[in-house]
Amino acid sequence: MNPPMSSRSSDPQMAAAAAVCQVSPTRCPARTRLYRDGRLELEGFPVADISDHLADESVTVWLDLLDPDQDDLGVLSEEFGLHPLAVEDALHPSQRPKLDRYPSHLFLTAYATRLDAGTGELMTSELAAFITHQALITVRKDDELDIGAVLERWDSSPELARYGVGYLLYGLLDYVVDTQFEAAQNLDDFAEELEDQLFDSVPHSMQVQRRSFQLRKSLVQLRRVVLPMREVVDDLMQPDLHLVGKELEPYYQDLYDHVRRAIEWTDSLRDLVNSILETNLVIQSNRLNVITKKVTGWAAIIAVPTLITGYFGMNVPYPGFSERAGFVASIGTIVVAGLVLYIIFKRKDWL
Amino acid sequence: MNPPMSSRSSDPQMAAAAAVCQVSPTRCPARTRLYRDGRLELEGFPVADISDHLADESVTVWLDLLDPDQDDLGVLSEEFGLHPLAVEDALHPSQRPKLDRYPSHLFLTAYATRLDAGTGELMTSELAAFITHQALITVRKDDELDIGAVLERWDSSPELARYGVGYLLYGLLDYVVDTQFEAAQNLDDFAEELEDQLFDSVPHSMQVQRRSFQLRKSLVQLRRVVLPMREVVDDLMQPDLHLVGKELEPYYQDLYDHVRRAIEWTDSLRDLVNSILETNLVIQSNRLNVITKKVTGWAAIIAVPTLITGYFGMNVPYPGFSERAGFVASIGTIVVAGLVLYIIFKRKDWL
Amino acid sequence: MNPPMSSRSSDPQMAAAAAVCQVSPTRCPARTRLYRDGRLELEGFPVADISDHLADESVTVWLDLLDPDQDDLGVLSEEFGLHPLAVEDALHPSQRPKLDRYPSHLFLTAYATRLDAGTGELMTSELAAFITHQALITVRKDDELDIGAVLERWDSSPELARYGVGYLLYGLLDYVVDTQFEAAQNLDDFAEELEDQLFDSVPHSMQVQRRSFQLRKSLVQLRRVVLPMREVVDDLMQPDLHLVGKELEPYYQDLYDHVRRAIEWTDSLRDLVNSILETNLVIQSNRLNVITKKVTGWAAIIAVPTLITGYFGMNVPYPGFSERAGFVASIGTIVVAGLVLYIIFKRKDWL
Amino acid sequence: MNPPMSSRSSDPQMAAAAAVCQVSPTRCPARTRLYRDGRLELEGFPVADISDHLADESVTVWLDLLDPDQDDLGVLSEEFGLHPLAVEDALHPSQRPKLDRYPSHLFLTAYATRLDAGTGELMTSELAAFITHQALITVRKDDELDIGAVLERWDSSPELARYGVGYLLYGLLDYVVDTQFEAAQNLDDFAEELEDQLFDSVPHSMQVQRRSFQLRKSLVQLRRVVLPMREVVDDLMQPDLHLVGKELEPYYQDLYDHVRRAIEWTDSLRDLVNSILETNLVIQSNRLNVITKKVTGWAAIIAVPTLITGYFGMNVPYPGFSERAGFVASIGTIVVAGLVLYIIFKRKDWL
Amino acid sequence: MNPPMSSRSSDPQMAAAAAVCQVSPTRCPARTRLYRDGRLELEGFPVADISDHLADESVTVWLDLLDPDQDDLGVLSEEFGLHPLAVEDALHPSQRPKLDRYPSHLFLTAYATRLDAGTGELMTSELAAFITHQALITVRKDDELDIGAVLERWDSSPELARYGVGYLLYGLLDYVVDTQFEAAQNLDDFAEELEDQLFDSVPHSMQVQRRSFQLRKSLVQLRRVVLPMREVVDDLMQPDLHLVGKELEPYYQDLYDHVRRAIEWTDSLRDLVNSILETNLVIQSNRLNVITKKVTGWAAIIAVPTLITGYFGMNVPYPGFSERAGFVASIGTIVVAGLVLYIIFKRKDWL
Repeated sequence: MNPPMSSRSSDPQMAAAAAVCQVSPTRCPARTRLYRDGRLELEGFPVADISDHLADESVTVWLDLLDPDQDDLGVLSEEFGLHPLAVEDALHPSQRPKLDRYPSHLFLTAYATRLDAGTGELMTSELAAFITHQALITVRKDDELDIGAVLERWDSSPELARYGVGYLLYGLLDYVVDTQFEAAQNLDDFAEELEDQLFDSVPHSMQVQRRSFQLRKSLVQLRRVVLPMREVVDDLMQPDLHLVGKELEPYYQDLYDHVRRAIEWTDSLRDLVNSILETNLVIQSNRLNVITKKVTGWAAIIAVPTLITGYFGMNVPYPGFSERAGFVASIGTIVVAGLVLYIIFKRKDWL
Repeated sequence: MNPPMSSRSSDPQMAAAAAVCQVSPTRCPARTRLYRDGRLELEGFPVADISDHLADESVTVWLDLLDPDQDDLGVLSEEFGLHPLAVEDALHPSQRPKLDRYPSHLFLTAYATRLDAGTGELMTSELAAFITHQALITVRKDDELDIGAVLERWDSSPELARYGVGYLLYGLLDYVVDTQFEAAQNLDDFAEELEDQLFDSVPHSMQVQRRSFQLRKSLVQLRRVVLPMREVVDDLMQPDLHLVGKELEPYYQDLYDHVRRAIEWTDSLRDLVNSILETNLVIQSNRLNVITKKVTGWAAIIAVPTLITGYFGMNVPYPGFSERAGFVASIGTIVVAGLVLYIIFKRKDWL
Repeated sequence: MNPPMSSRSSDPQMAAAAAVCQVSPTRCPARTRLYRDGRLELEGFPVADISDHLADESVTVWLDLLDPDQDDLGVLSEEFGLHPLAVEDALHPSQRPKLDRYPSHLFLTAYATRLDAGTGELMTSELAAFITHQALITVRKDDELDIGAVLERWDSSPELARYGVGYLLYGLLDYVVDTQFEAAQNLDDFAEELEDQLFDSVPHSMQVQRRSFQLRKSLVQLRRVVLPMREVVDDLMQPDLHLVGKELEPYYQDLYDHVRRAIEWTDSLRDLVNSILETNLVIQSNRLNVITKKVTGWAAIIAVPTLITGYFGMNVPYPGFSERAGFVASIGTIVVAGLVLYIIFKRKDWL
Repeated sequence: MNPPMSSRSSDPQMAAAAAVCQVSPTRCPARTRLYRDGRLELEGFPVADISDHLADESVTVWLDLLDPDQDDLGVLSEEFGLHPLAVEDALHPSQRPKLDRYPSHLFLTAYATRLDAGTGELMTSELAAFITHQALITVRKDDELDIGAVLERWDSSPELARYGVGYLLYGLLDYVVDTQFEAAQNLDDFAEELEDQLFDSVPHSMQVQRRSFQLRKSLVQLRRVVLPMREVVDDLMQPDLHLVGKELEPYYQDLYDHVRRAIEWTDSLRDLVNSILETNLVIQSNRLNVITKKVTGWAAIIAVPTLITGYFGMNVPYPGFSERAGFVASIGTIVVAGLVLYIIFKRKDWL
Repeated sequence: MNPPMSSRSSDPQMAAAAAVCQVSPTRCPARTRLYRDGRLELEGFPVADISDHLADESVTVWLDLLDPDQDDLGVLSEEFGLHPLAVEDALHPSQRPKLDRYPSHLFLTAYATRLDAGTGELMTSELAAFITHQALITVRKDDELDIGAVLERWDSSPELARYGVGYLLYGLLDYVVDTQFEAAQNLDDFAEELEDQLFDSVPHSMQVQRRSFQLRKSLVQLRRVVLPMREVVDDLMQPDLHLVGKELEPYYQDLYDHVRRAIEWTDSLRDLVNSILETNLVIQSNRLNVITKKVTGWAAIIAVPTLITGYFGMNVPYPGFSERAGFVASIGTIVVAGLVLYIIFKRKDWL
């Protein structure tokens, strides 16, 4: 679970704050970082300086925009030669992780996830990224995706920084995939809880049902953002992209393994939730059987004495009519009948 | 969701009207457009002039026919060298999106969709298209497919017009796929509504059932027209067709992504609808349990006092027979038995 | 649906009759046809003449045998060099469409289908065919497969006759696939009917169940004969067979599309039938809930007054015992209790 | 169904008996046969002579061992150069059909099957075979697999004997696949029977359930031994094995078709059994509805008169108390109420 | 089931003990073995000597660490040039069998399994292994995986020891796969038991349900560790790894067969468990039908006499009122009604 990057215990909030730009041509909040020859040289420098910096081949730049509008991206679009379709996709929620190749850059979308432990709802936060040879531009729709955690990962393995954009992208995706994996893990815990409730003696089947429905829904949503990640990571490793070199390959392979694990986990969870649903149905039907049997038993124990009292209430001179013997007989038969029935049903396990 | 084409806010109705031909050898309504070197030169010119125009290699022509009959297509068939099988398919509903290659042209069928928000029924509108190097001939069965919206898309990105038929086809398919995507979105809203009803305290399970059945049916139908689109778009991008050049490729790739997204969405909706169906079954079985328990509780509360009255109605000299003490005893036992039972069942949550 | 071949409205019965051989070495009924250079020259000529005719390279011969026995096929086997395994397969029902390659000929099995509209049962009729360079020999087990319709298709597009065996086979398979498609269509109508019954106010759930069971069974059977057809048609188009030339390719492509459409249709029908089955279960469980509620309501309305009469039937001097006031009280409480319960249950929608 | 081999009606028992060896170094029963240049020359010759015979390139030898132990196979292992892993597999049940390639020989396992018509249980009988260029050694665990039937198949097509081991193997596998096919057929009959019981008016749902459970279990087991056969036969046809020549290819192709047919059959049976299971559930739920309605109807017909007698049993001076008129009224209301209820329920189809 | 390695009946505990190192730079328990030219030369030698030994090309070394911490692996990491990502994975549970390629070594994870026969829970024990040309380093999290059994396998086929690391790895994986296979077998037994309970006359449906839920869960977990093994073993056999030579290939092929068998088994078990679940539901619904019928029968047998006593309890002068004849009539009708109902219900099989 813990990737090698997370060992340095710096403060993610601080690292993220240091990168915030004070001067930026975009109206939305921006963050910048500049690496030269594998060393972090600058942080929070003005966005406008990026093009000057990029003239130097040994420089790698990271730019992060939080909820930019059309104009914000328009500025970048010209400077980095971004394709209008990619810019369009970065502005509008696209609901599907993908990697698009454009002549001058790559365009990636992925989804960080978080499970609301209380309700079992899955929150997704879209992340778009433009990837060029020297720059990584990340576009976030909201602050859900913790960019500080990404920076922390980058800083925890500085020796990889010399691999440029491939390294930055690895840190980013590693974080995204970890949130997905964590969501799968939380869903598993959620399922485990449900399971315990399932066989509880106190019936709360409606709650189980409601929660398992939510669980299933969250699983469907998680699958939708995790499944295409396999293709995305696989595409990133294509040699013709020159993004992942020989040294980074094990890291991307590791990423790929994580994605597959997350997928396999959601798949097996799906199986489990189906089991829960079907088991719940059988348990309820079993409960109905038990209730029906109990009801019947007690109904009989009441109905038979009622019949006897009816008999002794007839206005015909039955033996014992209006006599003490009759009373004794009535009480006797009522008590005996009741007891016999009680014993029979107890034995048959109907009470 | 919003492709780059939709930014110009022209009036689709007007754009569509301008293209209507006044003079046409076909009896059905026809629309025409002529592009030369990427500029729109003519609109609504006579259908008979098309062959003259096509002599010029730099010309791209669009012709739209609304519900043509055999004769209408017969005229074109000769002029454009259309294959009789393709003409046959254009005339009869074929119920499956496909791309057929004929020696002198391509033949495409696709389906625009619309979800009736009230009933949840899916409406599909077939579109057939003959694609040659210089011409796009669209054949519509009815007016459901909004041709004005297609024209608007074309006009919103005039810079792509120089890519000829590939560009026209892109605008057309982008519109078609968007209607399919919208249908998936509407089905999702429909499912969301169902879900809310599912856990409502007021039971309307039959309505939920009827609507989820309709939802499932519409999903099946949507799948039928969306799934083969993946293959259609993929086939259109084959390099040997020379339809999609290097510059158009990102646009077709984007189209392809949209198709995949629509497919994945319908797939995950299917999962969700299954959950709704199964959950509904469990909820009903739960409701039966609750009803049975309630019924039983009240039945016992009535049956036990009835037994007691039966006892005091016997014509035998039980203690208190015909005496005031008997009355007190009877009322006492009835009230006590009723109360005890009420408390027991209340505690057991059976009432 | 309507292939180009069906335009000429000749009488299929007559066309089929003209081809019947008067003289034949086989005991079973035989039909023959001879095409030379794309023209139909002879019909109903003696089977024994076939080998003479085949000496001419420009001749294509069709021979049809209805329910032949071992000896009948033995005669042909020698003349056409048919492989014993293929002859064996032609004699015995094989239950699976396939195309086998033998050194000197191809062997094909396919199944025409028909849905009994009343019972929903699927009838299949096996067809075997030996395919050589110059001859098509069809073997039918029974008269279910309407050979007249096949002949009509051949005669409706005589311009294709010059493509020899490929053309004859296309007409034959086009007919077979059309019967399969029609069966799918009829199953769809059948499902539609079921659907209407499903939500009918009058419950006929057993009938729905029985019919949906039959529908599902027929679907399974249809799938079994339709699914392998895709492979069969695909194999026939392999260039190394030299059966389907450049000009026939669009026709076989069209056939292939039809097969895929039939497959996709049966697949989506399967989904639909599952929905019907599951919906039926929920509807029944809903019905049980409604019945149980109604029963309970009325039971309470009867049980409470019964309790009251029990009270007034006690042999203890309750207030009003043997007095007119008692009668008024009894009637009063009975009527009031009954009304109150009725109103309560009506409001709760239990009656 | 009937392969070409089964035409000669010899006695399988006798053919099998002729091959039994009188002299053998193995303790278990052994059978031998020797073919030279496609003719059967020797039968039942001593096992020890095999190595001498094999020196002649034109000789093909078959050796069959029934339930051999480690020592028996050890003797052969040396003589034929069998791999210890293969010998190990031949001695222990391996539960999976497979074809393993060893440097000096092939090793095959397959399963003959038989369905117990009474219980629906599937019996499987394992067969292992070592395949060298000149010899086929079959190892059977028990006598379930009818070796006589295999010999009969060999003898029925002696013209193929010149293809050596490939021919012997074909006869063997053809028999094995036929038993599997027959099992599928018997399961189909079994399912058909179940189906009839399903809609019987007399409910025997538990029996249906038990049998359909058994059916499903047998299907799972059949699938387990049939599915891998496709791969086994396909592997045997690989040209680099030099086992199946040009002339035998159609025969192996036919075998392959049989395997696929058996697989498709089990698949469609699976669908059918699922339908039976689900239909049974709906039928039961329907039955519960019918019972509940009937019960309710009769309960009402008894409860209402009981209420009336309660009324007339009250010890209050109701009109007609202790009078003849009262009796008439009581009888009248009881009969009328009973009749009215009976008619109402009859009309509503609740009785 | 029994691989060829298990024939020598040595004591696994002793073999394992002999390999324990007395001197080790790691704090966790370590085991070592050294093979030279296929002979076991040293056992339990100090870990620090390994690098000296490895200078000799003919030496193969095995090192086993039980639950090492970061520092323990850090020592090795330098000596063997282990990749930090692999070391990270060896320290943290990764929950997915995989084979990663690093420039200087391979990294493998696999899971030994054990089924708790009582509860049906599946225990998994992770094993990580670093594989270099001359050394196999195994890392175990706990002592669940019986290393003695692995050593025993190695010692049972010493003739393979000359194949170095490939041979050691084979023995290891053979053991791991056998535990998985055994778990599948135990799950099968568990399912068989459930099946017997299913059709037992005494209903224990809740227990069946609970156990089948556990069974399904264990199956999901088993699948998760078995399914990826196919890929792992397949990858190990890739020729470019030079791990599995020509002689070892049959052994790895055998391993691969075992893995596939385990997978197929879990797959068919899944089918079976589904059958059990669904059958349980039908059985319960059947039980409810039986209970409801029985209840109804007895209720009627009590209700009708109660009605009769009510009749004779009326305070109106019915024939026989206060007369002996009335008593006889009452007793008569009660007995007759009761008997008639009893006979009717007995015949209808409702009692």
